[in-house]
Amino acid sequence: MRQDEGQGTGATLANFVAATSWADVAAQSHEAKRSILNFFATALGSAYDPAVTSALRTMSPFSGAATSAVIGRPERLDALSAAFVNAISANLLDFDDTHLDTIIHPAAPVAAPVLALAQARGFSGRDAITAFILGVEVECRIGNAVSPGHYARGWHITSTCGVFGAAAACAKLLGLSADGITNAIGIAASQSAGIVENLPTAAKNVSVGNAARNGLFAALLAAEGFGASARAIEGPLGWARAMGDEPDLERLVGGLGKSWEIAKNTYKPYPAGIVFHAVIDACLKLRARLNQRIDDVLSITVQGSALLLARGDRPVRNERDARVSIHHCAACALLLGSTGVPEFTETVVFRPDIVSLRQKVRAQLDTSLPDGAARVNVQLASGEVLSEIVMAARGSLADPLSDLDIEAKLRDCLRLGGTGWNADAIIKDVWRLDTVADVSSVMNSHNQPMPAMGERESALVRSAR
Amino acid sequence: MRQDEGQGTGATLANFVAATSWADVAAQSHEAKRSILNFFATALGSAYDPAVTSALRTMSPFSGAATSAVIGRPERLDALSAAFVNAISANLLDFDDTHLDTIIHPAAPVAAPVLALAQARGFSGRDAITAFILGVEVECRIGNAVSPGHYARGWHITSTCGVFGAAAACAKLLGLSADGITNAIGIAASQSAGIVENLPTAAKNVSVGNAARNGLFAALLAAEGFGASARAIEGPLGWARAMGDEPDLERLVGGLGKSWEIAKNTYKPYPAGIVFHAVIDACLKLRARLNQRIDDVLSITVQGSALLLARGDRPVRNERDARVSIHHCAACALLLGSTGVPEFTETVVFRPDIVSLRQKVRAQLDTSLPDGAARVNVQLASGEVLSEIVMAARGSLADPLSDLDIEAKLRDCLRLGGTGWNADAIIKDVWRLDTVADVSSVMNSHNQPMPAMGERESALVRSAR
Repeated sequence: MRQDEGQGTGATLANFVAATSWADVAAQSHEAKRSILNFFATALGSAYDPAVTSALRTMSPFSGAATSAVIGRPERLDALSAAFVNAISANLLDFDDTHLDTIIHPAAPVAAPVLALAQARGFSGRDAITAFILGVEVECRIGNAVSPGHYARGWHITSTCGVFGAAAACAKLLGLSADGITNAIGIAASQSAGIVENLPTAAKNVSVGNAARNGLFAALLAAEGFGASARAIEGPLGWARAMGDEPDLERLVGGLGKSWEIAKNTYKPYPAGIVFHAVIDACLKLRARLNQRIDDVLSITVQGSALLLARGDRPVRNERDARVSIHHCAACALLLGSTGVPEFTETVVFRPDIVSLRQKVRAQLDTSLPDGAARVNVQLASGEVLSEIVMAARGSLADPLSDLDIEAKLRDCLRLGGTGWNADAIIKDVWRLDTVADVSSVMNSHNQPMPAMGERESALVRSAR
Repeated sequence: MRQDEGQGTGATLANFVAATSWADVAAQSHEAKRSILNFFATALGSAYDPAVTSALRTMSPFSGAATSAVIGRPERLDALSAAFVNAISANLLDFDDTHLDTIIHPAAPVAAPVLALAQARGFSGRDAITAFILGVEVECRIGNAVSPGHYARGWHITSTCGVFGAAAACAKLLGLSADGITNAIGIAASQSAGIVENLPTAAKNVSVGNAARNGLFAALLAAEGFGASARAIEGPLGWARAMGDEPDLERLVGGLGKSWEIAKNTYKPYPAGIVFHAVIDACLKLRARLNQRIDDVLSITVQGSALLLARGDRPVRNERDARVSIHHCAACALLLGSTGVPEFTETVVFRPDIVSLRQKVRAQLDTSLPDGAARVNVQLASGEVLSEIVMAARGSLADPLSDLDIEAKLRDCLRLGGTGWNADAIIKDVWRLDTVADVSSVMNSHNQPMPAMGERESALVRSAR
């Protein structure tokens, strides 16, 4: 398609978003609920993380009327600020959902503003789900159009593409016309930011929170008449080229409504980088076979693709390193038999037996293994070698978490997050979200009276002492 | 300098910012005041522009305690939102200051948050000026390090680099340590956004406003302990490379404190693209020589560099086009003898005699002329040809506006902007800003009781009817 032909891609996406109704997305709604349930799980798990508390403390003096819940906490903020804080808590532990084609975490930047806005304005559950599905569609299609170069060049794709999804979803929820949605998407292009260099730091949280906040902001500005270029995404001086990519227009706008990106969403069983999940699964199998003989282990060799090594063959100096370490994931799975949220806190990261076992792990390239697979070989003092290979990790599209698995994940996270919200009520409300007349009833019902900020701390923070 | 040697450039800049005091910048303070006076001029000129009113209407429900003035208006917002709105009004007409090496407009993204924060917290005029000078230094040095590729690739450099200046300035004003300033600069890297494709639209205003707002936000987050990569600017997956440039580290951090970017700042006499100023000056000279014989003009040929033609050889469909049109600038200067704010409103843009004269203008490449110069040839029906060449336009570094010129610009803008603020008081306050103990006294003193929003409209808006 030549640049000077046809309407801009923003308008093509916007026309699709404007024309799509609940009936068109109903078949995707169960997957959307799974994603939203997983979103609540991870947000609840981090509700009292120091980074969330700091973000909340920073935003509070700059919040207007407190219409929207801070998930897992008693405080409320205006919808923009709540979107910012809730996207941070949902993404903080790298435990949120994953769109494997792009490595976008779709829900955090889209569900956070959709729920905050729906609560503030009293929109229905069906409207919220419809907006969420369409936001994820826009977010992931834009990601598809610039992958894999975009992330590889240094753009944190959840942040940079999330803002488009948030804008499209919120513009849909606000009932904007196709022109208004086009403008919201175009304004998002001028707010798209976030770099990989900052991923090991709290600045990552800022760009994820901003994606949610600024997408909603783009929709609010479009509702007030702010315009944008019709070619903000693909124009010669537009978003994709400025960011370094010739956008793949077919992947951007081809077959809209025929396939759905939400259907490609996955949910993690472990709060570690997704490429490490096969390593963990292999080590859990080996642990059963080792049957307590962990002290006899001489060395552990983890074999995988170049991607696995690039992402995870690194020294562990802190919790953030641990979540992207082959060595730490293998050690926890072998020694402890679990790699949940507690296993990536300082208490475990610096346990002498874990440190010692990490030092026995060696990563090795095996170009015959695809991305997402891993082989682990354990050498014992007896000379015996145990080996396991995992081609499709638990939580992948080939072996997805069940609905009950996600419920259990939410209960675990909620407990560890030290929040007073009610797991049963949240789970029930999410599964029946399409029948809820006013999302604010959902967001309010779990928010029980709690001690003031400062008096509480999460089980996670305590356990780290 | 190799990537793995030495501290990150963010820390180098931050150490300089932290160590620099009023005594070190006092010699630059007069230029800073000129820039701040020009900032007030352009912000006042657009105070009641519909884009500013829309931005204010969008922000109002999302503002915390209203500590900070919306320049030229009676409304107040919290410091983040006031920074957003005031940066928009200061930049809206492309009439703000220009750092010619980068084409950054330095003041809007830096002065807006510095003044909003200083008013909210009661900081002194000296502290505000010191922070402003240092913010401009950081902003323009980062721009220097990636110019000219950055802008050419599609990045709106005032937005993308302005956020760094705002972050450094606000972190300095908040009294953060060098580490804190490093973090603020690094957080800014994850918020840097804004594309050239959107420049003809209101989405441009969003990225300029965000640069101001998010720079202050970065400083507030750093004050709460948010961290960032020490190599957020120049790291392998950092800001400069993700944006497409190998950064010039010498231009980024070489000779800090030995030269000052604020000294390279310029102020426009005309609210048009800076490259058109020589065209206007040449046409004003020709108008005097034509002496009313404008009806005898057969054709007008404007000759200049490739930059001039790239930026300004375009059809005029609206006000924004007119401000970047060789044809419109030439027509107004020749026919009306002025190219002020009114000449770029719809009333004049669509005047039949102006439209007719625009059609007689032809742009022509002359590779012998440097950027910023222009030759204009007027062919008369008599066969006579009048020609003028301007090598250094009024307002350039070679022919700068005087202090009195900037004062007159402020008075003109204030009158046209339809604001009730007091020009004499603002001018007096800015010139004595270094003696003011509390900036809030300055920002309050001009803010007289005014009718409610909606009852007022600016002379500009009226004149456009």
